[in-house]
Amino acid sequence: MCRKRPTVVSCTAKPTSQPRLAPGTHLVTELENDTLLRALLRRRVDYTPVWIMRQAGRYLPEYRATRARAGNFMDLCRNPELACEVTLQPLNRFPLDAAILFSDILTIPDAMGLGLYFSEGEGPGLERPIRDAADVRQLAVPDMEDELGYVMDAVGMIRRELAGQVPLIGFSGSPWTLAVYMVEGGGTKSFARSKAMLFDRPELMHALLAKLSVAVIAYLNAQVARGAQALMIFDTWGGVLTPYAYREFSLAYMTRIIAGLTREAEGRRVPVILFTKGGGQWLDRMADSGCDALGVDWTLDLADARRLVGDRVALQGNLDPSILHASPERIRAEVGRVLASYGPSPGHVFNLGHGIHPDVDPDHAAVLVEAVHTLSPAFHGATQ
Amino acid sequence: MCRKRPTVVSCTAKPTSQPRLAPGTHLVTELENDTLLRALLRRRVDYTPVWIMRQAGRYLPEYRATRARAGNFMDLCRNPELACEVTLQPLNRFPLDAAILFSDILTIPDAMGLGLYFSEGEGPGLERPIRDAADVRQLAVPDMEDELGYVMDAVGMIRRELAGQVPLIGFSGSPWTLAVYMVEGGGTKSFARSKAMLFDRPELMHALLAKLSVAVIAYLNAQVARGAQALMIFDTWGGVLTPYAYREFSLAYMTRIIAGLTREAEGRRVPVILFTKGGGQWLDRMADSGCDALGVDWTLDLADARRLVGDRVALQGNLDPSILHASPERIRAEVGRVLASYGPSPGHVFNLGHGIHPDVDPDHAAVLVEAVHTLSPAFHGATQ
Repeated sequence: MCRKRPTVVSCTAKPTSQPRLAPGTHLVTELENDTLLRALLRRRVDYTPVWIMRQAGRYLPEYRATRARAGNFMDLCRNPELACEVTLQPLNRFPLDAAILFSDILTIPDAMGLGLYFSEGEGPGLERPIRDAADVRQLAVPDMEDELGYVMDAVGMIRRELAGQVPLIGFSGSPWTLAVYMVEGGGTKSFARSKAMLFDRPELMHALLAKLSVAVIAYLNAQVARGAQALMIFDTWGGVLTPYAYREFSLAYMTRIIAGLTREAEGRRVPVILFTKGGGQWLDRMADSGCDALGVDWTLDLADARRLVGDRVALQGNLDPSILHASPERIRAEVGRVLASYGPSPGHVFNLGHGIHPDVDPDHAAVLVEAVHTLSPAFHGATQ
Repeated sequence: MCRKRPTVVSCTAKPTSQPRLAPGTHLVTELENDTLLRALLRRRVDYTPVWIMRQAGRYLPEYRATRARAGNFMDLCRNPELACEVTLQPLNRFPLDAAILFSDILTIPDAMGLGLYFSEGEGPGLERPIRDAADVRQLAVPDMEDELGYVMDAVGMIRRELAGQVPLIGFSGSPWTLAVYMVEGGGTKSFARSKAMLFDRPELMHALLAKLSVAVIAYLNAQVARGAQALMIFDTWGGVLTPYAYREFSLAYMTRIIAGLTREAEGRRVPVILFTKGGGQWLDRMADSGCDALGVDWTLDLADARRLVGDRVALQGNLDPSILHASPERIRAEVGRVLASYGPSPGHVFNLGHGIHPDVDPDHAAVLVEAVHTLSPAFHGATQ
């Protein structure tokens, strides 16, 4: 077997404040393990790379310890040293093929002055939601090195600590997803306000989405400038729309964003992954957005998904996160099923179909990663 | 325009207890409006029939008044007079083309002795969830005229009060959906226990589903015996499964149930509607279950859904419930879009893609019903 495994990353988060790095000053390093980037670009790899959505999170006791030390959730996000520390924690446990920036999806609305807060057990909320045209007019695209400098500092710090072992994925919420939170003022089950605006005041919703798109482009490009080597757009709420509304109010803006992104840095292509939760039925359209890869949840067979997108994009997914509650034998069997359903190279990045559950045993995540690395070389023409 | 509209139903629920009707003693009546039944069987109709999932519910002030009078939610479900009263309330307001039995989805687990309760704002719970093989072994299929007699009495009473104006739809949860509640002990976001059982102890999950299937068949057939003229199976949680698990643990049992149902009563075919929430990607397979119609949520274009199922089944849906928060003009426009996307007859029953939201203005539901009745004759070859 000829795959390279990332070696253990030693996270040396400093208790005192780091000197801020100027934009563009991250280290240009050779990547020891570029399997993820190659797979996202549908190039030849020796095994299927794997990372886990929410891999830095509550299922890890060391995350809970750092979180307790930080104070509340946003204190953790706003502290680059601690954000760096939790980003690297899963890499110390598992030979993952990528790190992903630890941050919140609502940093942009917060930086736009809407006042992000977290109440225990209730999820995120925004103190000053968007209600009318005046609210939208007042929104300014935040300065990425000022209001959002803490995110960029975390990106730079993580890149330095990773020291080229695996690539770092940066991310943002999609404009529609951010708009839902901004209009509802928090989480929602009915989407009453955001959909009423979409249907009754489409021009106002478009104005909001256009402004958010400018901000998301700047946000993601700033992450690349500080060292992000791949980008992911999380469209958490695109799947609650009708097909027409999805195309007009979510996919169109993500397509616009992708066209505005820095697609090459440090002499390498920066792949973009698009993930619309519950959007499996629209993969065909999504594949034309200009992205390099599509995230797929577990309600679609990857063989069917692959038929839908042809050779236009790579696919990332799609193990049901609930399988991590099952036994190691069952986890291995289901990993094998996902690998077989994608079939031979190129273009598969292994992941869950959604974020890892907070109550999963970390040892079960280890089984998943090990199973992908052990079982996948057979799908890449390797002789074992 | 040659469509018949149901006339207003006068609900005369009695404050004192009704004499219980013996099975099979409902009135055999001619239906004044059989548009729903004809459309479900893909026969010719003059306009598209419409009903609304959760049409008897919290968005109606008269429902809230009856509910307050009843005590808690299960007191309302267990009182045939009051269940009849709330079933008929929406028909007094809107010229709907069907009534649907007001009841809870968890009556079967409750009658099996699991102890259903409702806590304010938390949704339903079961006091004695299923944990092991002994729990499954102990489950007995309840007697439909004893433990579930209150449901059957409600069915008989509603049929009598409807007096043949529109058909009555009976319903049940799917075995998988009931099993999720029974194993989790209530609502869940992660499905940790039910999926762990599915993956690690499939034989135990199959034993539970087999027992539930027997109960659901008896439950639906008893509803038909008391007067239900169409049946709907709600597979609320089928959409959280992988395609493989869906076929093995949900669709297989619904197919078995449909094969066991009374399909003719009072000289008429009793159509069966299958609805898997979030199951749009599996319509092709679902169409072979033996059902007459499939419910479709709003994430699929009905034109695409129709292509998937061909002329095998009718389709029910699929307006986004959120559109009822928008203006009357917008509601009419979106109703027109759904009608046009299904296209010409036969085989469309108009509905929302999911239950009506509790905070919708009832006048907006009126706009929906009126728009379907006004705009749809054009799709049925009518000259206006």
